[in-house]
Amino acid sequence: MTTEVIPRTAQGQESAALARRTVEELLQRVQERLSSFLAAERARYAEVNERAVVAIDALSDLVEAGGKLVRPAFCLAGYLAAGGDPEDPGIVAAAAALEMLHISALVHDDVLDDSRTRRGKPAVHLLHATLHRSRGWQGESRRFGEGVALLVGDLALVYSDELMSHAPAAARPEWHHLRSEVMIGQYMDVAAAAEFSVDPALSRLIALIKSGRYTIHRPLVVGASAAGRADLAPALAEYGEAVGEAFQLRDDLLDAFGDSAQTGKTAGLDFSQHKMTLLLGWAMQRDAHIHGLITEPGHTPDEVRGRLLDTGVPEDVERHIAGLVDKGCAAIADAPVDPVWRSELTNMALRVAYRNK
Amino acid sequence: MTTEVIPRTAQGQESAALARRTVEELLQRVQERLSSFLAAERARYAEVNERAVVAIDALSDLVEAGGKLVRPAFCLAGYLAAGGDPEDPGIVAAAAALEMLHISALVHDDVLDDSRTRRGKPAVHLLHATLHRSRGWQGESRRFGEGVALLVGDLALVYSDELMSHAPAAARPEWHHLRSEVMIGQYMDVAAAAEFSVDPALSRLIALIKSGRYTIHRPLVVGASAAGRADLAPALAEYGEAVGEAFQLRDDLLDAFGDSAQTGKTAGLDFSQHKMTLLLGWAMQRDAHIHGLITEPGHTPDEVRGRLLDTGVPEDVERHIAGLVDKGCAAIADAPVDPVWRSELTNMALRVAYRNK
Repeated sequence: MTTEVIPRTAQGQESAALARRTVEELLQRVQERLSSFLAAERARYAEVNERAVVAIDALSDLVEAGGKLVRPAFCLAGYLAAGGDPEDPGIVAAAAALEMLHISALVHDDVLDDSRTRRGKPAVHLLHATLHRSRGWQGESRRFGEGVALLVGDLALVYSDELMSHAPAAARPEWHHLRSEVMIGQYMDVAAAAEFSVDPALSRLIALIKSGRYTIHRPLVVGASAAGRADLAPALAEYGEAVGEAFQLRDDLLDAFGDSAQTGKTAGLDFSQHKMTLLLGWAMQRDAHIHGLITEPGHTPDEVRGRLLDTGVPEDVERHIAGLVDKGCAAIADAPVDPVWRSELTNMALRVAYRNK
Repeated sequence: MTTEVIPRTAQGQESAALARRTVEELLQRVQERLSSFLAAERARYAEVNERAVVAIDALSDLVEAGGKLVRPAFCLAGYLAAGGDPEDPGIVAAAAALEMLHISALVHDDVLDDSRTRRGKPAVHLLHATLHRSRGWQGESRRFGEGVALLVGDLALVYSDELMSHAPAAARPEWHHLRSEVMIGQYMDVAAAAEFSVDPALSRLIALIKSGRYTIHRPLVVGASAAGRADLAPALAEYGEAVGEAFQLRDDLLDAFGDSAQTGKTAGLDFSQHKMTLLLGWAMQRDAHIHGLITEPGHTPDEVRGRLLDTGVPEDVERHIAGLVDKGCAAIADAPVDPVWRSELTNMALRVAYRNK
């Protein structure tokens, strides 16, 4: 499996390398912007009271642990593909806002899913529940830990907006849409998991909203809009939705078969949280027995894994991922952007679809 | 106890009535803005999937149940006192944003405190936990209900920003400050409740942040800034922090001694949630036995109430409220605003300090 499109000419190769380097340099600035933003907030509140910085420190820990920065990368790529000026600090603020929003979503998600670890460390709600218990504080440790995570996520959500207020105003409508849509997609995901009825059409819709749009399509359009090129939205939407679905399907495969030391996340959470992923939805259509393996007590994740492999669905998902990457890349084949950026978007599609963490 | 300042001249009386009517008419528009905003969002998502509107409907229910609109009222008063144009729809959007933010805080607070009712109806997390149980869905009903409330509150937080993006840009720095500060104050409140150590200085700091600034000072400054009068901030801060503390002390008294049919909230929550309010902090300094009545099982709220009354602290709190109202009104006595608005701000101080719900 190749994960890079190698341009045929030496000049093309150089331009492609330059494009990727520009994104990576800007991602470095995004990371610095997040750190310096939180450091300034910490300095402002450190004098108020020792308790006033706890929530800020929780966010700094997540920033420093480092994420994949997928959404900032697509935002920057959309901006640069649309001809935006890489020296404008506004686009760094926009990309940082997307990452801060994602940190909020992770902290809240970990409460929803009762995940144990995040970015290789204990999830915020667990860490604070443990502190509560060890200090012998009043009340229920679980409620305390989850309450702290709720507020830490709220703070990140608020900070994401503060960062976005430094981005070009033209990016704002897409930003608002992205944020409300992901919350609504999250509710649909939680409800579908609770219902746990086999409905691949619903699973695809949720994957489209939660991943296709939130992770790829809308960050790209935020970037292109910031560069004044909202006209690119339709092509970027088609690319983003296809590549985003591939991203989500890889997520499903990594959850089921990945290495948690590599991903930094608890493995098999989709099983224990009854997530009706597309992988599980298709597999249950072929083998109804899997439903019971997941919902009835006494079965191990390895039993589910074995049975899933027997259905042949994981290979089908791999084929589907390949088709989605092709579809996404075809969508931008005629888009009015520099061919260098078209290549880079193709490379990015391959990288997210075939990542191992 | 008089709760209105009656101007001495007939013209003065007419102007005061007009000022109050202007605020009330704008509050009506704020309520309509919230309803129409949510209706438009609902229409946009209704076609996607039946599950896509559940979170929006939860917000509409809270809007329709009606709140006291304290924060929008102070925002509007700050704007009008600063000479802002009452016809500018931007200020309605700003006031609506403050109410939407507050709805988010209420939904999330009810999870933190495990409150049963809100605005006379079951709290969001309880309603959805009950639905989950009655439908026999997968997973834990508590986690589902709290997860839905988490997402509903997140959606309101995001919508509050979308509304604020229609307000004058000059209001934005204060808005960002207001929002991050209240999240940090919330964490301090939750931590102080868990520690439950008697520390009236900490209780006052939390009341200052969570009520003085969030409820009164910063909404006033958001309004004044929207009208281009950020120079009024120092006087409005002094007024708002004093009146806000009075507001919070009334809240403490209403929680301890109020009528839950009137307030629409569960009574005695501060006891059961170990909230170290100023009322309780002072009372415990005088009577150490109250600490045990609250933290040890087997005691009724009525026992706590009786013992609180015996300390004489509730009367002291009443006297303190009166002093704070005086202090707040003195702070704006020389502020460069129309005397009519000075009177109206005085009336508003009395109304929030002596409310019964």
